[in-house]
Amino acid sequence: MPDRRDLARAAWRTLTSRPIYRNPWIHVREDIAELPDGRTTVYGVVECAPCVGVLPFLGPGTVVLVGQYRYVAREFLWEIPTGGMHSGESEEAAVQRELAEEAGYRAGRLVKLCAFDTSKSILDETAHLYLAEDLTAVAHAPDATEFIEVRAFPFAEVVRMVVASEIKDSMTVIAVLHAARRLGM
Amino acid sequence: MPDRRDLARAAWRTLTSRPIYRNPWIHVREDIAELPDGRTTVYGVVECAPCVGVLPFLGPGTVVLVGQYRYVAREFLWEIPTGGMHSGESEEAAVQRELAEEAGYRAGRLVKLCAFDTSKSILDETAHLYLAEDLTAVAHAPDATEFIEVRAFPFAEVVRMVVASEIKDSMTVIAVLHAARRLGM
Repeated sequence: MPDRRDLARAAWRTLTSRPIYRNPWIHVREDIAELPDGRTTVYGVVECAPCVGVLPFLGPGTVVLVGQYRYVAREFLWEIPTGGMHSGESEEAAVQRELAEEAGYRAGRLVKLCAFDTSKSILDETAHLYLAEDLTAVAHAPDATEFIEVRAFPFAEVVRMVVASEIKDSMTVIAVLHAARRLGM
Repeated sequence: MPDRRDLARAAWRTLTSRPIYRNPWIHVREDIAELPDGRTTVYGVVECAPCVGVLPFLGPGTVVLVGQYRYVAREFLWEIPTGGMHSGESEEAAVQRELAEEAGYRAGRLVKLCAFDTSKSILDETAHLYLAEDLTAVAHAPDATEFIEVRAFPFAEVVRMVVASEIKDSMTVIAVLHAARRLGM
């Protein structure tokens, strides 16, 4: 009889998998999975590309945020530049592309902060977060579906916005808390 | 002619919305949305219940984590107790239920850390995070689909696991970074 520790670590086997829906950003599939005790469950999984986010420091105490209307939340929100990685693109290339497209900067130095799973039970999405320094302004070419406001904020104010849950995006929250920790703030 | 700032803040109008898929945990719909410049786009939205997560302190420097095989990531991962809120349930009731079901404790004191959006572009999911103290052991009744290992960790070790990206769940990462900040760690 396997013990609780073995059951917690046992891989769930995929018995069947069928595609449900696909658009340019997400792919939904429905699996039948076998649990460690032999029972089965339906499991809907939403697949999408890995994504990157970048916290750009204009100077020691100043960061750049982008503000946009978020269709899912139905409100205007401030965030770091984020976006999905393109096929074959490196993390650093995706970071520089999103930083240029959304904020109009190129970074002279990128530091990786962490990688995390945005919503582990539903979404197959890994986010890679970077801190950017040595910024230089570049031509601004936003995506066709992006309407973005760019603004410099004191980093201390951004930390306050995160602590107050005024900033709500997981990628921005984690990048700001990691950076604040590194800076002893 | 509206300026960039107005376009960034303008609400996107939903022209049509059709249900795509539903299981007990997620509901996928496909909208046609009108952008601020009058163009339209397909938008797939995944809806699910709001969720809660709780970082339980057994003592000043010790926390309880739960470990389980995660089907989407296909690996065993350590996390704080988390789960979806039931219909009509308060955040605090959901936190106490998940803490009891997954870790076997009841909290004498709950402190709200923050609320955030797990994956803003795809998923309509808000996560509410709490810190729990004054724990007492209760009967353990895990969900039928949950096979969970429970272990006490030094909080400093959990902070190290977050910084090293060994802990990957967004709810756990954010709860640990917020708590470390409050404790000056």
